[in-house]
Amino acid sequence: MPAYDVLCIGNAIVDIIASADDDFIVGNGIIKGAMNLIDSERAELLYSRMGPATEASGGSAGNTAAGVASFGGRAAFFGKVASDKLGELYTHDIRAHGVDFDTKPLAGPPPTARSMIFVTPDGERSMNTYLGACVELGPEDVEPAKTNARVTYFEGYLWDPPRAKEAIRRAARLTHEAGGEVAMTLSDPFCVDRYRDEFLDLMRTGTVDIVFANQHELISLYQTPSFETALEEMRKDCRLAAVTRSAAGSIILSGDSTVNIDAIKVDKVVDTTGAGDLYAAGFLYGYTAGLSHAVCGQLGSLAAGLVIQQIGPRPRENLREAAEQAGLLKRLARASR
Amino acid sequence: MPAYDVLCIGNAIVDIIASADDDFIVGNGIIKGAMNLIDSERAELLYSRMGPATEASGGSAGNTAAGVASFGGRAAFFGKVASDKLGELYTHDIRAHGVDFDTKPLAGPPPTARSMIFVTPDGERSMNTYLGACVELGPEDVEPAKTNARVTYFEGYLWDPPRAKEAIRRAARLTHEAGGEVAMTLSDPFCVDRYRDEFLDLMRTGTVDIVFANQHELISLYQTPSFETALEEMRKDCRLAAVTRSAAGSIILSGDSTVNIDAIKVDKVVDTTGAGDLYAAGFLYGYTAGLSHAVCGQLGSLAAGLVIQQIGPRPRENLREAAEQAGLLKRLARASR
Repeated sequence: MPAYDVLCIGNAIVDIIASADDDFIVGNGIIKGAMNLIDSERAELLYSRMGPATEASGGSAGNTAAGVASFGGRAAFFGKVASDKLGELYTHDIRAHGVDFDTKPLAGPPPTARSMIFVTPDGERSMNTYLGACVELGPEDVEPAKTNARVTYFEGYLWDPPRAKEAIRRAARLTHEAGGEVAMTLSDPFCVDRYRDEFLDLMRTGTVDIVFANQHELISLYQTPSFETALEEMRKDCRLAAVTRSAAGSIILSGDSTVNIDAIKVDKVVDTTGAGDLYAAGFLYGYTAGLSHAVCGQLGSLAAGLVIQQIGPRPRENLREAAEQAGLLKRLARASR
Repeated sequence: MPAYDVLCIGNAIVDIIASADDDFIVGNGIIKGAMNLIDSERAELLYSRMGPATEASGGSAGNTAAGVASFGGRAAFFGKVASDKLGELYTHDIRAHGVDFDTKPLAGPPPTARSMIFVTPDGERSMNTYLGACVELGPEDVEPAKTNARVTYFEGYLWDPPRAKEAIRRAARLTHEAGGEVAMTLSDPFCVDRYRDEFLDLMRTGTVDIVFANQHELISLYQTPSFETALEEMRKDCRLAAVTRSAAGSIILSGDSTVNIDAIKVDKVVDTTGAGDLYAAGFLYGYTAGLSHAVCGQLGSLAAGLVIQQIGPRPRENLREAAEQAGLLKRLARASR
């Protein structure tokens, strides 16, 4: 049996979250809804203009790992923090979610990565990420034993730091050799724009088997105004794809098959941070448990729908219990809880 | 005109907040609903057992200062952080709320104070506070110009660190000399038990004019099982008192006058952290604006009622706008917003 259901690899980032209005976003030259990469100087400037904030561990693939564990899956994570206070908080939180995390922290500078996230009244989040210690993640951080996972999942964002892609290629090769599959998220439309050819190459060469994307990322990938055209291109380029469309639900493509999944009913969107990450968590938990694509998608919708009703990118509820209550998973025997 | 409406003095603490069940509270020997003082060794132990957390600036009087500023009041704060990451976060947040805060940070160890707060399903919070840098607050941290406030407010918790009481006595004297009043909160029933005689002395000698307490603190102060008896004792011992009773509202005592205030309707109590602090903020904003005791109490109820419907001890809403919408304050002219 594989050692893990899902191994996640991503930038290890602490989120610093505050409210802001649209004027603030525009006035500070932030691309709304996107992940804006910033340097330390701009990080200081934006922080000086930011309102009172709260901090929570984040990072796309780290959020997914926490979500998988919350569903009851066996999850591991690779990501680089520094030996500083934010690194301690990050390490505590992901382990407290039940995720195996042992990547060696960076001894010296730069510090642990942080993303200043401005949440506008519509619930949309605009991220401003200083990568810090994440730039040091490399192939030496791949722990071979942990690549024996049913699925190894990584974020497209890892193409931003210089050597993380080498770690990905190594982890993907080891996972495939052990009989597992490899999944990725396209992360962000602008990230897709930066690395379009490389992402397409990962899919077309079979380095990646499963792709997660939202509609904006999909359209950016294929540079077509037609969502339908992009879907058909995606169907050809990977074995399995899950495309999320916010309140319109998601579409799962696999060969000739297409499964449409509804979003769950949400009273009020508070903060969309983590929505895509938690969709992937639900989907991958279901997938590695051998459930149908339809249930995988419903588990994704559930986890995403819950996380957008709170501030912060990781679920406070136990997702296993939420899924049992929703009738999506069988109740575990008490002894195994 | 005084330089500030309210000067607040307190322990500068970053909250580390996680969910826990009652078994966890009991099993770890935490007194539920109370502020448990801990040393660095126990802090490490409890953190190793704590679930995934979020961080937010806190500290009782700091929360009150943030609340006063959110109502539109001119607020200042004295409190000691260290020159570390949590100290930076704390400083950012209180300033971002619009509070003047310039207490010199501690250069060396100990680190910035943190309180591990476990929130049980009933919304009750149980605090575990490592005082860290707060132990270094002393009379040299009193900036004389800032004591020219309508009200100088401090927390009873300041009797825990060794020299903060000297800072309080100095600030109280300067405030009185400038024509202002001095207020305190009794903070916690166990804190009252530790410093009962000194607190009563502060009230009876006129060092303190206005007292905030909840019913448990009041009963602890007078060591009587009768709430009514305790109220009548309190009426004699200070010029003005506001006694909060959770969902039962609050009672304002002043000479022979008694004003009863209802709590606001709350759909679901998420986290009671900051309830008393924000009650004091609303009350003191109204009091320093010259409003009636009834409106002061209603502003306190509003702010407390809002903060317990979110995770974290400081309001995310603009309290000025909330109070205007509730018809408690007149709409400010747009230019002055």
